[in-house]
Amino acid sequence: MKLLEDYISEKGRLVGKDIVKVDSFLNHQVDPLLMQAMGKEIKRLFADTEITKILTIEASGIAIAVMAALELNVPMVFAKKNATKNLSSDVYSTTITSFTHGRDYDVRVAKDFLGKDDKILIIDDFLANGAALQGLIEIVNQSGASVAGCAIAIEKGFQDGGKKLREKGYRIESLAIIEGFADNKVLFKK
Amino acid sequence: MKLLEDYISEKGRLVGKDIVKVDSFLNHQVDPLLMQAMGKEIKRLFADTEITKILTIEASGIAIAVMAALELNVPMVFAKKNATKNLSSDVYSTTITSFTHGRDYDVRVAKDFLGKDDKILIIDDFLANGAALQGLIEIVNQSGASVAGCAIAIEKGFQDGGKKLREKGYRIESLAIIEGFADNKVLFKK
Repeated sequence: MKLLEDYISEKGRLVGKDIVKVDSFLNHQVDPLLMQAMGKEIKRLFADTEITKILTIEASGIAIAVMAALELNVPMVFAKKNATKNLSSDVYSTTITSFTHGRDYDVRVAKDFLGKDDKILIIDDFLANGAALQGLIEIVNQSGASVAGCAIAIEKGFQDGGKKLREKGYRIESLAIIEGFADNKVLFKK
Repeated sequence: MKLLEDYISEKGRLVGKDIVKVDSFLNHQVDPLLMQAMGKEIKRLFADTEITKILTIEASGIAIAVMAALELNVPMVFAKKNATKNLSSDVYSTTITSFTHGRDYDVRVAKDFLGKDDKILIIDDFLANGAALQGLIEIVNQSGASVAGCAIAIEKGFQDGGKKLREKGYRIESLAIIEGFADNKVLFKK
């Protein structure tokens, strides 16, 4: 998606050799017109697919997910994060190991909001090693619903999360895939 | 706002005598059409006010805030929550005591995203004792920006947060104000 690539190139801040910070438009300050454009692009990409609900995870996925939900006219559910294991019987839950933050956290969704007939589009802002996405897929599997696909804003193509999940047969659509960095510029997969 | 009151009356779940759960459309599962309608209503309410940026707090405020940001055509910033005190010099931060969760948490916004010329509309999903809203106001004050007003989805009119903040001179617009409960029904302030 050219608009997102342009935002990353023009407004992203390179930190060190292989990190680009996108907190001025995506995951701290949020550009609503970009969120709307991403919602429309996600609708276009999944036009051939039946989707009954969108699942994301708090907090940075929510702005993208609610815009996609508006375009697709389906409800959006955001999984909640907890520092402690949730033992309640009325939630689906799993544990995700965050390499970014160096710790485990528990993720949960109330059973009321995922059903076996649901066809779920999972949305998140980043895909790197795939831990968060695998956690959300695990929650969908617990509910008996099916995964219609996954839409990601920015995939780090030089990490293997996307590759592993595509090999398992999941449809992953990333709006921008970063291949690497050179001369203080972000290189995108075309 | 009649649409929001109808959602609360029809889809809210009463728990005990004085709690209504709105997690089927507002703060876990999210209805995107309701979010859009709230965004439009917030624009209408603040049509006479100069607003350069919206500030909310993760996670449940984000969906409402991004829709209002789209309507007002301004950026949205969400404050981040941390369990631990943030001592970084590049953030504005304060501590909020959550009575709901029985603990303190640190809230922070990168200094890059709030400036002294900004006129901030603060948005949140709930207003009860006002602790979260006071924390966000404190962060705006640290930045030297001004508070243009506060827009809240649901105010618990039987708690004193709204009263205290209005007495301090802040403009608080709540889209639904719950006055109390009777006969298993929610009563709204008209």
